Amino acid sequence: MVVQHSETHEVLMLGYTNREAFDYTVHHKIAAFWSTSREELWVKGKTSGNVLHIKEIRVDCDQDALVYIADLEGSGVCHTKNADDQFRTSCFYRMLRFSENDDDKLKFLEK
Amino acid sequence: MVVQHSETHEVLMLGYTNREAFDYTVHHKIAAFWSTSREELWVKGKTSGNVLHIKEIRVDCDQDALVYIADLEGSGVCHTKNADDQFRTSCFYRMLRFSENDDDKLKFLEK
Repeated sequence: MVVQHSETHEVLMLGYTNREAFDYTVHHKIAAFWSTSREELWVKGKTSGNVLHIKEIRVDCDQDALVYIADLEGSGVCHTKNADDQFRTSCFYRMLRFSENDDDKLKFLEK
Repeated sequence: MVVQHSETHEVLMLGYTNREAFDYTVHHKIAAFWSTSREELWVKGKTSGNVLHIKEIRVDCDQDALVYIADLEGSGVCHTKNADDQFRTSCFYRMLRFSENDDDKLKFLEK
């Protein structure tokens, strides 16, 4: 599912859910994911403090995708950090230069 | 990958890509997807006219997710239609009521 910031409307991250993670999210109004690498419930922010407070959940036409519109508590959702040693706001902190003859194909939007 | 409207910032749809669809997208600056149901390249709008013109592509931290920020030509990206017989702008046209004691759990944001 997609996580979108409720105020900036920035897409913050993409994650997976299942029944357990979805039920947790709806019950606690905090985003939880299903970690496909660790195969376990992943309550976002439990370790990092970067908690996503759910404001709205949207469902797509064929009901196999969700958008979580959320408030962010903490500096960011990403596990990577910026130059100031803060978690980056969004996992999508790089832009692909696809129309320029540039050797550096990835431009950092947040360093 | 996530498609986001370049002006309204609304999340329009979620789709899959592969090398072929991605190369098409970068070359033509039009969103193409990999149809997982038909197992073929799906150039968005070829039949419907609802073309997504790519303005920006963002890449996530572990480089397995993309955001396509796009201009929409046509009424909407969804294959479903609204009450005016127009394609709905976004596939996420319903909101889940998760904090109310309401029998009607899905609220239409666009009818």
